[in-house]
Amino acid sequence: MKIVALAGGVGGAKLAHGLAQILPPEDLTVIVNTGDDFEHLGLSISPDLDTVCYTLAGLANPDMGWGRADETWNTIANIERLGGPNWFHLGDQDLATHIERTRRLKECQPLSRITRDFCKAWGIKPTVLPMSDQSIRTIVETDEGELAFQEYFVHRRCEPRTKGFRFEGVDKAKAAPGVGEAIQTAEAIVICPSNPWVSIAPILAVLSTLPEKWGEREGRNQIVAVSPIIAGKAVKGPAAKMYGELGIEPSALAVAKHYQNLAGGFILDEVDAKLEADIQGLNMQTLVTKTLMQNSDDRRHLAEDVLDFIGKLL
Amino acid sequence: MKIVALAGGVGGAKLAHGLAQILPPEDLTVIVNTGDDFEHLGLSISPDLDTVCYTLAGLANPDMGWGRADETWNTIANIERLGGPNWFHLGDQDLATHIERTRRLKECQPLSRITRDFCKAWGIKPTVLPMSDQSIRTIVETDEGELAFQEYFVHRRCEPRTKGFRFEGVDKAKAAPGVGEAIQTAEAIVICPSNPWVSIAPILAVLSTLPEKWGEREGRNQIVAVSPIIAGKAVKGPAAKMYGELGIEPSALAVAKHYQNLAGGFILDEVDAKLEADIQGLNMQTLVTKTLMQNSDDRRHLAEDVLDFIGKLL
Repeated sequence: MKIVALAGGVGGAKLAHGLAQILPPEDLTVIVNTGDDFEHLGLSISPDLDTVCYTLAGLANPDMGWGRADETWNTIANIERLGGPNWFHLGDQDLATHIERTRRLKECQPLSRITRDFCKAWGIKPTVLPMSDQSIRTIVETDEGELAFQEYFVHRRCEPRTKGFRFEGVDKAKAAPGVGEAIQTAEAIVICPSNPWVSIAPILAVLSTLPEKWGEREGRNQIVAVSPIIAGKAVKGPAAKMYGELGIEPSALAVAKHYQNLAGGFILDEVDAKLEADIQGLNMQTLVTKTLMQNSDDRRHLAEDVLDFIGKLL
Repeated sequence: MKIVALAGGVGGAKLAHGLAQILPPEDLTVIVNTGDDFEHLGLSISPDLDTVCYTLAGLANPDMGWGRADETWNTIANIERLGGPNWFHLGDQDLATHIERTRRLKECQPLSRITRDFCKAWGIKPTVLPMSDQSIRTIVETDEGELAFQEYFVHRRCEPRTKGFRFEGVDKAKAAPGVGEAIQTAEAIVICPSNPWVSIAPILAVLSTLPEKWGEREGRNQIVAVSPIIAGKAVKGPAAKMYGELGIEPSALAVAKHYQNLAGGFILDEVDAKLEADIQGLNMQTLVTKTLMQNSDDRRHLAEDVLDFIGKLL
């Protein structure tokens, strides 16, 4: 069964890793948000792509949710000593990714090709695609004005109040090579438990530019979303805070409403079982299961549940 | 006694460190070659400036003659894993210098100001000046065509035969702020034991653009050169090979001839004592002493000898 997973950072990376443990590599394509990409210290950084790739390659730091395992911090410590910007923590191994990607981007190589080569070098077998080779930048509209995503997320620690989002450059961007074909040939699409506002929305914005009207292909039952909100809280990141600031009570139900026109299937955590009936009321089929992924087995179990659920929906 | 030292990489850095052990900081200015500077992996690298600064700060790798002590190599190892260029070995700590310098250069800050701030951060008290804030690039003319210096020096390991040198951009460059004043107020100028062709010549080319005709100021006796050639060999680097390929037998005498119109004093190693009379025949006063600097004491002893010699010449 050919599956496309739409992924942001940690949550998306974990479920993608679960799917990769089950599916033959040729049957899994992960389309990754690049709206968080930014330039820092002259380097082109793609946080979600790196989190997905490091996780699939078994190179990810298991504790932090970003960066590399067994990392050292000698470069950033010395940049700090020189009075340089130190708010974005770049490990020495991680830096190699950014330096080499930046070098190749400056030679006008597309991000999708660089990502393909990096995946090969890291031994990643499923296909990982950036959503676009063009620059799309997520801007968070806050009570302190517009902030580039990393400025909001890392530098300002998500403190300003969110008022909205826009994805700069999306009107001029195209989906990366391979994205359209993957969507067209997929038997099902999994919306991973990533932030709906700033991880999944940019990907959906890019996919909406595809000639194939993918969301309406064969009906909503080919699309399944997994809630990133458990017991009203985001496992990681500002999703719940954003819901609250936008006047929506953060919950799996709120996420389901977010996707109700798109996805026919919705997966929520056991602790939110009481919301199941309300979500079914949105004309969505539901699966209640353990969605919190604390280790590699959890990832595989959730992936198995997702694939079983898809099998029942199709 | 106010001293200006003209320095390239390792040899220059060592003597500068010796002088810094004796002179009050306000009496020592080191003017450093930037003709070897280059761009690699998108980073602006100034090898001689870094060698001088790391040496003065006590941060230099004592064995390699370049780079930092207690260095790690995690970034370059990972760049190599990604198939990126690995011929120029950049340590993790060293990378911080290049990344932060590049960031500031891109903000149009002059190299001299960045160097001043870096020296402050590293606790370096004498003044270290790049010869120029403008880009000057040493090109080695070889039997395989023209090669940028680092391409010749690191990538090609000095293998191509040298035919000549040129310093691209020197006609449009100006001496960095502070260089003219340091030269004007110095009581003596020390040409450090650096490569005459590719370390000292670019500095002299820049100094020749100064309004003050410094080489003719008060006579040659204010200028003392230390031979980088000992027993016909360069302590480090391709100086002797270059002399040979240019049809000149490499020796302290050849170096003395190189500087005879400029310097009134010449310092050669004990093992070359037999050349002393010939060098005196060039109308140069001579000092024969131990010039090989194998440790910190050697550096200070040579610096003492240099200063004593200057005292006798003035």
